[in-house]
Amino acid sequence: MSFEFDDATAVAADGSVALPDRWTMGPGFAHGGYLMSVALAAAMEDASHPDPVTMSAHFVRPGKVGPAEVETTVIKAGRSLSTIRADLHQDDEVCVATHTTIGDLSAASDIGHQSMEPPKLPTPDRCIAADPAKFPSIPRMVGNLDLRLTPESTGWASGHPHGRATMEGWVSFRDGRPIDTLSLPMFADALPQPVLNVGVVALWTPTIELTVHVRRRPTTQRLGVSFRTQLLAGTYFESSGTLWNDDGTLVAMSRQIQLINR
Amino acid sequence: MSFEFDDATAVAADGSVALPDRWTMGPGFAHGGYLMSVALAAAMEDASHPDPVTMSAHFVRPGKVGPAEVETTVIKAGRSLSTIRADLHQDDEVCVATHTTIGDLSAASDIGHQSMEPPKLPTPDRCIAADPAKFPSIPRMVGNLDLRLTPESTGWASGHPHGRATMEGWVSFRDGRPIDTLSLPMFADALPQPVLNVGVVALWTPTIELTVHVRRRPTTQRLGVSFRTQLLAGTYFESSGTLWNDDGTLVAMSRQIQLINR
Repeated sequence: MSFEFDDATAVAADGSVALPDRWTMGPGFAHGGYLMSVALAAAMEDASHPDPVTMSAHFVRPGKVGPAEVETTVIKAGRSLSTIRADLHQDDEVCVATHTTIGDLSAASDIGHQSMEPPKLPTPDRCIAADPAKFPSIPRMVGNLDLRLTPESTGWASGHPHGRATMEGWVSFRDGRPIDTLSLPMFADALPQPVLNVGVVALWTPTIELTVHVRRRPTTQRLGVSFRTQLLAGTYFESSGTLWNDDGTLVAMSRQIQLINR
Repeated sequence: MSFEFDDATAVAADGSVALPDRWTMGPGFAHGGYLMSVALAAAMEDASHPDPVTMSAHFVRPGKVGPAEVETTVIKAGRSLSTIRADLHQDDEVCVATHTTIGDLSAASDIGHQSMEPPKLPTPDRCIAADPAKFPSIPRMVGNLDLRLTPESTGWASGHPHGRATMEGWVSFRDGRPIDTLSLPMFADALPQPVLNVGVVALWTPTIELTVHVRRRPTTQRLGVSFRTQLLAGTYFESSGTLWNDDGTLVAMSRQIQLINR
């Protein structure tokens, strides 16, 4: 069985990869979180441990549909952790510069302390599907996903933002691909901006940097996701996310900082 | 006027730097946040913009007191943002691998949205000074700071942790050095672990990765700081922090992930 996301993140042994049309945001420009997953795919090839624990990516230039290369460097291969640098290049210029530290999350169900709770989401059938057939302005990459936003989160789309900079819902792969750690950077960047719900209109909000902490291996077919922005100051805003198995166990924490162009 | 932190972060034009005894945690091991500030000092030398906006560091090997080198690479020098890689080496091995994206925070007092509030801290004179003369077990680097923890935050030290994984207080330089963006990575890593206040005893909690978002230039002589841990799962826990001017304006958000060795 072949899944679309596996094809789109298949990095050859020489580092070459083809960035397809299907994972774009704007016309011809690859989605940032997807590019991070491509870099992660290459990094994991060099790792001697099973799980990415923390991956930080700086988005330097847009990635364009077409050929690209990922260059990896093993910075350290240690006993319990490895650190890999993976840079995604096009035309000899870096598009995305990443560091990933890789370890073993097999003991992550042993909770020593937890003071966070999963978001209280309506069931998926009570959420609003981001269906490209119904909403032609949805970025093309969303067509690969079953993305359902909570009704409250979609207020901005009808001109009634709910007044808090939050965006919540459920995500899974449309073709049924299981969710794994490789796909988490993409999912951490897959929702509309939380600031839409406080009436901020932005044409273009490029990500400057995105860091994902993987806290547990995903085990369910769908993730509950919750993002919020606490500060938009000058031209910069951050967005912090949590991604949860549908049994309410935390899978990942993410935070990115973005530039707003109004 | 010469300040101790400037001496300790003085990277020569060839990248060489001396890591002094004064900025250590354990015996002979340099403090992580301080090392990040050293790498940032080198990165800023190569930047064409004034302010670090986001810096991510992966801590790969401990930095030892003595000579080190910082190797910088300009990944992009753009119109509004630059991205610099800065790796701190010792003995031809990377200790800290960093990426910093640098921009301009001069418009950051223009708040478009804010949904966070500064922590409610007692005044500094009502906090508990982490005075190395009184508490010999305090890491040596703290001797460079005027670090005052809220009385509540110090419960763990007398065997009465308050039951929430938080750690709050005030920090400034003991020698009166003004706080600037260069020092923020160090300050983002300067407090005891929040998990101490839920009774978690850890001998050694090395940082795996620390990311700092600078949101505004520091303008006051002292910062109010608040850190919390939301999840300790398996051997990994994160700590998220906010750093504030004493007028209640946000200066930085930080998040790190650490390994616990019990």
